[in-house]
Amino acid sequence: MKIPSKDKPWIRTITPEITLPSLKDNTADVDRLIKAVKKGLQIEEVSIDFPLIKSIPGVLRKYDYHVHAALFENKNSLHLIDVFPSGNNNSTYGLAVDLGTSTVVLRLMDLSTQETTDETSFHNPQIEIGEDILTRIHFAIREGGLLRLQDLLIQRLNKEIDKLAKRNGIGVNSIIGLSAAGNTTMTHLFLGLDPYWICREPYIPVINKPELFKSAELGLAINPQAPVLVFPNVGSYFGGDLIAGILASGMTKQNEVSFLVDVGTNAEVVIGNRDWLMACAGAAGPALEGGVVGMGMMAGPGVIDKVVIDPETHDFEIRTIGDHPAVGICGSGLIDLVGQLFLAGMIDQRGKYFKKRCRDRLINIDGVNHLIVVLAEGSAAGQPLTLSQPDIDALMRSKAAMYTILTTISNTVNIPMKDITRFYVAGTFGLYIDPESAITIGMIPDLPLETYVSLGNTSLEGANMALLSARAKDDIFRIRDQITYLELNVNQEFMNLFSAAKFIPHTDGSLFPSVKVRSS
Amino acid sequence: MKIPSKDKPWIRTITPEITLPSLKDNTADVDRLIKAVKKGLQIEEVSIDFPLIKSIPGVLRKYDYHVHAALFENKNSLHLIDVFPSGNNNSTYGLAVDLGTSTVVLRLMDLSTQETTDETSFHNPQIEIGEDILTRIHFAIREGGLLRLQDLLIQRLNKEIDKLAKRNGIGVNSIIGLSAAGNTTMTHLFLGLDPYWICREPYIPVINKPELFKSAELGLAINPQAPVLVFPNVGSYFGGDLIAGILASGMTKQNEVSFLVDVGTNAEVVIGNRDWLMACAGAAGPALEGGVVGMGMMAGPGVIDKVVIDPETHDFEIRTIGDHPAVGICGSGLIDLVGQLFLAGMIDQRGKYFKKRCRDRLINIDGVNHLIVVLAEGSAAGQPLTLSQPDIDALMRSKAAMYTILTTISNTVNIPMKDITRFYVAGTFGLYIDPESAITIGMIPDLPLETYVSLGNTSLEGANMALLSARAKDDIFRIRDQITYLELNVNQEFMNLFSAAKFIPHTDGSLFPSVKVRSS
Repeated sequence: MKIPSKDKPWIRTITPEITLPSLKDNTADVDRLIKAVKKGLQIEEVSIDFPLIKSIPGVLRKYDYHVHAALFENKNSLHLIDVFPSGNNNSTYGLAVDLGTSTVVLRLMDLSTQETTDETSFHNPQIEIGEDILTRIHFAIREGGLLRLQDLLIQRLNKEIDKLAKRNGIGVNSIIGLSAAGNTTMTHLFLGLDPYWICREPYIPVINKPELFKSAELGLAINPQAPVLVFPNVGSYFGGDLIAGILASGMTKQNEVSFLVDVGTNAEVVIGNRDWLMACAGAAGPALEGGVVGMGMMAGPGVIDKVVIDPETHDFEIRTIGDHPAVGICGSGLIDLVGQLFLAGMIDQRGKYFKKRCRDRLINIDGVNHLIVVLAEGSAAGQPLTLSQPDIDALMRSKAAMYTILTTISNTVNIPMKDITRFYVAGTFGLYIDPESAITIGMIPDLPLETYVSLGNTSLEGANMALLSARAKDDIFRIRDQITYLELNVNQEFMNLFSAAKFIPHTDGSLFPSVKVRSS
Repeated sequence: MKIPSKDKPWIRTITPEITLPSLKDNTADVDRLIKAVKKGLQIEEVSIDFPLIKSIPGVLRKYDYHVHAALFENKNSLHLIDVFPSGNNNSTYGLAVDLGTSTVVLRLMDLSTQETTDETSFHNPQIEIGEDILTRIHFAIREGGLLRLQDLLIQRLNKEIDKLAKRNGIGVNSIIGLSAAGNTTMTHLFLGLDPYWICREPYIPVINKPELFKSAELGLAINPQAPVLVFPNVGSYFGGDLIAGILASGMTKQNEVSFLVDVGTNAEVVIGNRDWLMACAGAAGPALEGGVVGMGMMAGPGVIDKVVIDPETHDFEIRTIGDHPAVGICGSGLIDLVGQLFLAGMIDQRGKYFKKRCRDRLINIDGVNHLIVVLAEGSAAGQPLTLSQPDIDALMRSKAAMYTILTTISNTVNIPMKDITRFYVAGTFGLYIDPESAITIGMIPDLPLETYVSLGNTSLEGANMALLSARAKDDIFRIRDQITYLELNVNQEFMNLFSAAKFIPHTDGSLFPSVKVRSS
């Protein structure tokens, strides 16, 4: 059997040359179509699902056998998705979906041009059940809970898909494929699979490597026969979003060894190249996402994303997203702030406030030191935005955990961090973070700044790649199988590394020569 | 990929050795099961459908991972049907179905022993819409008509399946496969496919080669993931029942050339061997089935199936099914009767009554000659059963058509009829027919009687074979593709042959030497 090159798309359309029925050729309508498709593509096998069998004769006869056929390839055989009348507008579309715990992003792709038609994002409607994954898992146990969680997501997706289709003047039936990446729990909730065992020892998901689904099976309001690709996972704590990240980074195409870091509730770290991949995940703490800190919040209008402190005057230069009055600080802003506080000598190596350097910016609330970051007049709420000593302590633990995870995995594979040629940072966190500040506080290794590459939403990018390319679709399963998962063992050695990393930048200053230069 | 030998069943169960989940092996439940099945069967690919993914973790955990897995093979890959707890009664079952226009037959097979567990038959409930296929096709055009026809059949099947299951003490969920053979229209109505074009030029079915369906897709109340094999057809007038017949006859396994004849509303004829197959169908007339003749009826209690006339005394010796008082005559009885009338000299070569030989058995009703076959006192209705001259004329046309079709196809492939080593007769007709009588009237060629083999319900037998064997399942598609369909051209040559065959046994008496011996 001649299989199309893997560089080609796995979802595509052709215009088969169908001979008209006659007494001399009484081949059945469905077989007639399949025969023409096989001939057009020079392949031996095209399968077709039951609902299509019913509808095909009507379509063929309505359009005098002048039709386009949409097909997808899977496991070396082709499957018919639908037939459309031959006409002027023959575009077909696909959706790439980032199934985020907090935010869902939908990208509409024109499959013929492989270009983005439109994009939209919205808060995950499951937030009304619970902001975090664990609350949702617990809710799923309740009578009807799982169905409700799935339904919230699917209904909202359908609404947004409908909006996207309408504003681009296309029918939802012309959306003939969907590719979705998310963490393991989100993937389960999307599919309506019971997530109960995901958070219980020994942490067993329902499925690691889902096969392609039909959109109708999931209740998605696109073409009912459209294939739905759901990214595989390595386990309960290493999901399809990270497989998508690895794919999007391109690290598995390179000879050089790269790091990929994705920071969320957990910090997920991958190291490897074209030959091998090792991954681990650890609680680096939501402090890095701005989730724990008093004034912390997710990136959005008015959120502080950049801070510069004049080392002489101790004046704060503060940038907010969209230049709105300040409402809080995101993870990257927090890293900037703490890095700058250290370089200005306002906190010491342990992250403790230097009272005399902070002067009247330091206030005491209920016996706890707070630094005023934004005065009442500069804040949106009319109240000063402050950073408490415990906030800094939380960040210190998070950054120490991150650095310790990086050290541990690099020790395990016996590749010194200085030999890393690319350090990819995924997600919104990666989009805003200033690597110099992150190095200053000793969160990431002191590598040349050009080593750090911010990738943005790699979950969406990976989903997009796998939607368009047969090779990328195959790659995600190859990547999954290639990953060696390193179970982080919180033993004495780990604790020693962690303790050493709880300084700015580190107990061993020689690891961070550039910080030494900046702080001197 | 190592594919199991084709001699094996394509539906089977295995008991996979599943390792228990642990922190060291956090493989997902579904992947864990699939892995164990692959290992047990030494295969590389096992696919699983969406509804099963949802239910598997629950079953695995409920039975501590001690389960049987039922699978089916298709196109060189294996698909999971279901998992069952490991226990005492591990039998799984399959159903072979003959989807007859008049009668539906269900056979319940134990898949482990390959033995028949039970069998049942019932009148096709679509008879309430119309006795014949054409009436049903016309009804299907009406609003909701097609759905009603399908629903009548499926609901009745489900009722009968439930009865079969209950009286054999098994659960319908343990029925994990179904194989159904029927003519092209019945197949369409079973699948809910529009039969509109089947009876309209150029006679195009919706589908020739259906793929396997899932029982749930058809609304069948057996295991929802059970594969449903529907026999392929060659065209509107050569259906899956005949493919089943060819399979059941075994003619495609032999070097010698055989004939296969199935008589219904049409006479279907197949000639061939392991290397080639040619088929044709023609209107041999329902007279052969007993459908047109005044006293004709389908075989049943009290129906005359055997007639012997003493050539000297002209006494009639009449046998009825079950030795009940006579109610009518079936096709085979009619052939016996006419053959015996000829041998007793009561009708001439053209099938016309010899008044002086028939004597007081011949009566005139409304100017038409009738022969009293059963006197009033011997008949169930208390009225004489008679055979009119037009009844005989109808049979003469039917038998002549049959012989002409046989001659035409044998001429086409250039194999003299005397070289035919096996002549298979399928169906109820074949079960009761006396080849000697059929030869006497010149309906079938004058071959040694041992050449004729009655096969019974080959539609059911073929369905049964394809249910049990992977090789037989493949064979039906190979057979279908191998058949050359001969469109009967009613030209001058055909009409000449037909006219010559409208004598008893034939204008050319030398073709029937045995009849010459018997009638002299």
